[in-house]
Amino acid sequence: MPEFSQSARRMRTSEIRDLMKHAANPALVSFAGGMPNNELFPTDDIDEVYASLPIELKRQGFQYGPTAGFPPLLDELGTYLRAKGLPVDSNKLIVTTGSLQAINVTAKVFVDPDDVVLTEYPTFIGAAAAFQSYQANAVGTPMDADGVVPEELERAYREHPNAKFLYLTPYFHNPAGVLYSAERKAFVKEFVAKNDILLLEDDPYGELYFHDEDVPLTVPLKADPEIEGKIAYVGSFSKILGPGMRLGWALVPPDIYPKYELAKQSLDACSSTFTQVLASEFLRQGKLPGYLARLREVYHRRMRAMLDAMNETMPEEASWVEPRGGFYVWIELPERVDALDVLKTSIENGAVFVVGKAFDPKGERNNCLRLAYSHTPEDRLADGVRIVADAIKRAL
Amino acid sequence: MPEFSQSARRMRTSEIRDLMKHAANPALVSFAGGMPNNELFPTDDIDEVYASLPIELKRQGFQYGPTAGFPPLLDELGTYLRAKGLPVDSNKLIVTTGSLQAINVTAKVFVDPDDVVLTEYPTFIGAAAAFQSYQANAVGTPMDADGVVPEELERAYREHPNAKFLYLTPYFHNPAGVLYSAERKAFVKEFVAKNDILLLEDDPYGELYFHDEDVPLTVPLKADPEIEGKIAYVGSFSKILGPGMRLGWALVPPDIYPKYELAKQSLDACSSTFTQVLASEFLRQGKLPGYLARLREVYHRRMRAMLDAMNETMPEEASWVEPRGGFYVWIELPERVDALDVLKTSIENGAVFVVGKAFDPKGERNNCLRLAYSHTPEDRLADGVRIVADAIKRAL
Repeated sequence: MPEFSQSARRMRTSEIRDLMKHAANPALVSFAGGMPNNELFPTDDIDEVYASLPIELKRQGFQYGPTAGFPPLLDELGTYLRAKGLPVDSNKLIVTTGSLQAINVTAKVFVDPDDVVLTEYPTFIGAAAAFQSYQANAVGTPMDADGVVPEELERAYREHPNAKFLYLTPYFHNPAGVLYSAERKAFVKEFVAKNDILLLEDDPYGELYFHDEDVPLTVPLKADPEIEGKIAYVGSFSKILGPGMRLGWALVPPDIYPKYELAKQSLDACSSTFTQVLASEFLRQGKLPGYLARLREVYHRRMRAMLDAMNETMPEEASWVEPRGGFYVWIELPERVDALDVLKTSIENGAVFVVGKAFDPKGERNNCLRLAYSHTPEDRLADGVRIVADAIKRAL
Repeated sequence: MPEFSQSARRMRTSEIRDLMKHAANPALVSFAGGMPNNELFPTDDIDEVYASLPIELKRQGFQYGPTAGFPPLLDELGTYLRAKGLPVDSNKLIVTTGSLQAINVTAKVFVDPDDVVLTEYPTFIGAAAAFQSYQANAVGTPMDADGVVPEELERAYREHPNAKFLYLTPYFHNPAGVLYSAERKAFVKEFVAKNDILLLEDDPYGELYFHDEDVPLTVPLKADPEIEGKIAYVGSFSKILGPGMRLGWALVPPDIYPKYELAKQSLDACSSTFTQVLASEFLRQGKLPGYLARLREVYHRRMRAMLDAMNETMPEEASWVEPRGGFYVWIELPERVDALDVLKTSIENGAVFVVGKAFDPKGERNNCLRLAYSHTPEDRLADGVRIVADAIKRAL
């Protein structure tokens, strides 16, 4: 057998992967999955959409589509993104196989081996894996309750002035659960404006706010005309329709778009036309707003139940920021604690979550844990939290 | 804006792409598309499948699935591939976003910049683009009516003894339309057995044979126990259900499988669970054999109509091999002819096809043309062929 490529030789199965197999064990309370609960999917809406499809549209769903995306979906998405203030008309939109593919393509277009990519710490595990698959050196910059810490980002950029891009998830961050404050967004704007760096703005959770007064904070940085030309904005249907559709998008400046399209073409030619037809009709038939309202209510209620249980049971050494949207609570423990010990005890006693090091691009820092409330049945949240709290107490 | 990566800088939009936009013009007879006609898709079968889905299965379709594939689909595919003689139990199966992703992943796992990959000439345009996206040096080895020419392949391998793999499409080749003969398959077997090279065996068209007596020739090389450990076998639902499902697969030796799974995970996490549920039930409910029988009949009839028209109208300088299955006829012209001239005249007069250089990994040789009969309405085949034949006569 021939030798593996450099890139393949660096690919490693994560040591926590075996533990994560427990996440699927129905006997355990799982806070591990960063996904909606199966019962929340809009199956009735999609049944209606499917039943309404004229035969010609259905046939198109079986066929190849343009690499950039199924044209009616690009139209519907354009309308949807324009309403969020995004510069759809001066940029180019491309449909991708989940937003992970949009992130992967960004790495493919910009990263040579050993190039630096700046990320938050913690950061989305899938993005870190995509960057590493192009042999990027992903440097994680610490966050606080308001977003990435300005001095830390400035320092990281001074150390890595040739960094290819900055990857941020400013709205209900995975795993940190943080919504960037107005001040922190202003800092990022200034940082992007003054430096020769691309911002990769990842926005899968922005619609899932729990408080109407936060809506202004969820307006993407990409909506700002002063910096939009330096931002690749990516989003996803995974949290607002279903991950199984495998549909995301990138809205990028026209000067870099041709490379995105060529890269995507070589990856999978086009995303599923079948699911693009369904998503396009889901939007066109006006089913998204009602579904989103329902999701916000359910996730808000679950977050509340979880936080109430945490306030009752967690030791005072554990700290967290109350999520204002999205799927996650990020618990920070004293640095001496290894979250892997907490996880092992927790699994023995009936609950599972993801340890912090999974979200460190270097796979080192491990005194944190991510609890997702998106996927956990509401009547088991309190029990699960108690198990995790007990395991934390033991590890302390 | 930061600099593009090496790989992105080498990505080029093909000069023939603009001409190919004509392929979608309904006023032209199109022999360009390597896809089924929209009217051939099994929409009724999939309507029945969709209507039969229990709610739990439907919900799973909205959810993330394992990177390796939706388990019931892996089971159904395993049964299907085992029946073709493939070593499903000693190898590992992975579902991919079209077989193009399986080909792309093979390149990602083995290719470093400037590594050589041996292909046929002509070869599948999508595979060549995927190889080039990893900066491979794809070397196209000439074919004749029986497959790749032994002396040519031996010579290419002597020149490039470190070639990472050999990419072949032995069953109803795209674009050459060729089915490998028994002798040629024996040669490939010996070549693979004696050399330190991986065979990437691409089999999207093998089911679409026109003559039952050819079935033994369509048995994959991967079914041979003496060499199966050196073969990555890839296939697709695109031609036997619909490309819009974006589902393919790879069956690979267990020693290379972990890298395939990690590479796929970083690309798009998993393929669409929604279309995997449909494909899985399409197989489980026994709908494939009847659909295949219908496809074989339709494509055979179209090929016959096309060849009859060609025999009547083509000048004697044009030569071709009569297809015994699949979608394509490959027409070879004297070397002095530039197929681009033929294409331009042809488009002016109302027919479009793909020029030969699209299938040359180096983009040079251009005295050939590919006519697909898979997508062309039967009542327009003869007219279209006459237009192409006239354009060839003018170019001569």
